[in-house]
Amino acid sequence: MKFQWQRIAEINQLRADKKPAVGTFCIFVPEEIIVGAGGACYGLCGGSNATIADTETELPRNICPLIKSAHGFKFQRTCGYTQFSDFIYGETTCEAKKKTREILDKHHPVHVMNIPHMKREKDLKMWKEEIEDFKSHVEEVTGKKLSLEEMKEGTKIVNEKRKALQRLDALRGINPDVIPISAKDGLLITQIGFMDDPLRYTQKVNELCDELDKRIEENNSVFEKDTPRLMILGTPFAPPNWKLHGAVKTTGGAIINEESCIGHRYYKDNVDLDSVEDEDTMMDRLLQRYTQVDCACFTPNTQRIDKILQMYKDRKADGVIYYTLSFCHTYNVESFLVSEALEKEGIPCLIIESDYSPEDVGQIKTRVEAFLESLTFKKKAKAFKDL
Amino acid sequence: MKFQWQRIAEINQLRADKKPAVGTFCIFVPEEIIVGAGGACYGLCGGSNATIADTETELPRNICPLIKSAHGFKFQRTCGYTQFSDFIYGETTCEAKKKTREILDKHHPVHVMNIPHMKREKDLKMWKEEIEDFKSHVEEVTGKKLSLEEMKEGTKIVNEKRKALQRLDALRGINPDVIPISAKDGLLITQIGFMDDPLRYTQKVNELCDELDKRIEENNSVFEKDTPRLMILGTPFAPPNWKLHGAVKTTGGAIINEESCIGHRYYKDNVDLDSVEDEDTMMDRLLQRYTQVDCACFTPNTQRIDKILQMYKDRKADGVIYYTLSFCHTYNVESFLVSEALEKEGIPCLIIESDYSPEDVGQIKTRVEAFLESLTFKKKAKAFKDL
Repeated sequence: MKFQWQRIAEINQLRADKKPAVGTFCIFVPEEIIVGAGGACYGLCGGSNATIADTETELPRNICPLIKSAHGFKFQRTCGYTQFSDFIYGETTCEAKKKTREILDKHHPVHVMNIPHMKREKDLKMWKEEIEDFKSHVEEVTGKKLSLEEMKEGTKIVNEKRKALQRLDALRGINPDVIPISAKDGLLITQIGFMDDPLRYTQKVNELCDELDKRIEENNSVFEKDTPRLMILGTPFAPPNWKLHGAVKTTGGAIINEESCIGHRYYKDNVDLDSVEDEDTMMDRLLQRYTQVDCACFTPNTQRIDKILQMYKDRKADGVIYYTLSFCHTYNVESFLVSEALEKEGIPCLIIESDYSPEDVGQIKTRVEAFLESLTFKKKAKAFKDL
Repeated sequence: MKFQWQRIAEINQLRADKKPAVGTFCIFVPEEIIVGAGGACYGLCGGSNATIADTETELPRNICPLIKSAHGFKFQRTCGYTQFSDFIYGETTCEAKKKTREILDKHHPVHVMNIPHMKREKDLKMWKEEIEDFKSHVEEVTGKKLSLEEMKEGTKIVNEKRKALQRLDALRGINPDVIPISAKDGLLITQIGFMDDPLRYTQKVNELCDELDKRIEENNSVFEKDTPRLMILGTPFAPPNWKLHGAVKTTGGAIINEESCIGHRYYKDNVDLDSVEDEDTMMDRLLQRYTQVDCACFTPNTQRIDKILQMYKDRKADGVIYYTLSFCHTYNVESFLVSEALEKEGIPCLIIESDYSPEDVGQIKTRVEAFLESLTFKKKAKAFKDL
């Protein structure tokens, strides 16, 4: 809580200095532009059940809990990040969000980026214009033009942040014998990355990684030997949504990675700044980076499946949990194609759909427990066969 | 049933003559092009609960029943329209459909049209290209180029069909004292329009309208005087989904209009063929017509609200039922903005979300009954006041 208020005080100071403060729900926001303008880009509160009942006076019951929760925080005026933002970044990646922003617009300024359905050349051309529009909108807030140098500087800062997160990800998952950090801590650090000042955050994550490096050297794992190693695929975990991580922890599994928007999808790609001499090239490079985001909103989205299979091999995982927030149609429908590809490779997969209610905690725990048992049995059988 | 097989025999004859047969789920398909090429454009089976259980091996539980039902018909190979189509028209108006077509693609050829999120000039430019692409795809099926004259001829046929439906709509709703046709019959005729040959259908609908004209002259209403007049807003009723119409009928209400895709949204606009001398103008006119479709997939979609208020006044309705298929996020979220506008005008509105299961029939009946009672009470109170 103290951290939150400190950060909000910083954000308010930035705003007093005419720097932009932009709240987001999605990783398509070109934060390089905001950071380049000296401002703050942060994820809005949206992981709590506590605001949902109120928001159902405006929104239907059957939409994603993240959207309802975030809308509810605005409705209740209980999220400092939302309250003290110049505008909320809205986009079209998900239809519940796309339509909800029409209502949100009545409560808070929203700027919408039109993210296309496909990644054909003509779609990308339009997407580039959206990035340019976004830059103009930020300039309206600051009242001055953003220079190429500022954009490059912003990009460098965000690149470094993503590199630090990539380093943490590697430390969590690459060594098959030592996992130097718990799943909940790993997730929490990623979540904080959506709120903190990027320079301070990058430094702190790198300091943590130095410590984790040491732990690996010392063979100091937070999990017992042969604990099943799990990758989580799917939709984001906004804090304080630690339901699945809690269930896996208490049933004896180790989560080594989240292939989600608050996770690997967010930090996997960097912006190539090599030979960027003009604004148009800068925009092309931003576009290049953002179009690598393999969100299920795109049709088709086969690159995501190829990536998942590669990630699984690299991390020597024992199984995956495909997690979707309730009523998230895109990730939910795509789970069939992903699990089909996993099955072909003989990769065990458990699909869990859940919201923020505590009601299914027990059920999820039971399902995860059964899944982990089957993985342990499989591991033992393999070890026996290898003897 | 006999009608279905007769129509399918016709479709097969068309295909034998190298004419296109295109199955659709959506009213954005430019059917003028298909009809111009001498082919058949028809809605696919998708209104039955009977195919849903099977389809849940591939699709999640929590998506729209129409999509699941239609996918299930393909899965079971039990819809002649689906089986005997050259390709299925897919689009991006709804994310469950957008993603499901990636799976459907494995079972049947699908051609996707990218319908944009917005209606800005640049979106429309891209949309026009999609119509042109669609035409090329139809030409691939027929193996020959479609001429301007053929397109104009196809457009004339579809315009006449829509005019006949507009006439039926007016007869159902414009006279405040006489409703010459039952709601279920009115809906059924509209539903048949998505399957039948357009020339025959237009002729038959006009014959029916002549009969309805007579009934109105003779003051021959199928409803008793002062039966509450209802407009239905929202998502389509694919046959045999007559659940809501059944509930309204048995509780003593009169439905005079469906503002839905199988309804007013489908036939309200015609293509202007005035001075169309070249293909480019023809494409512009098609675009012009299709962009008037006020689907909730667009953001914003305020024109729909203005239209609803006007329709309500024109039809002297007593109330509206906003109907959404379960998990249809766009229409579901938009219901808040629509009902807010209705409330401002003092228009009574009941919101119902339902699927194809028979389980909520009783509950819907109870809710409709209570709603109708309140409308009757209001009508009586007004009459008393006017004395």
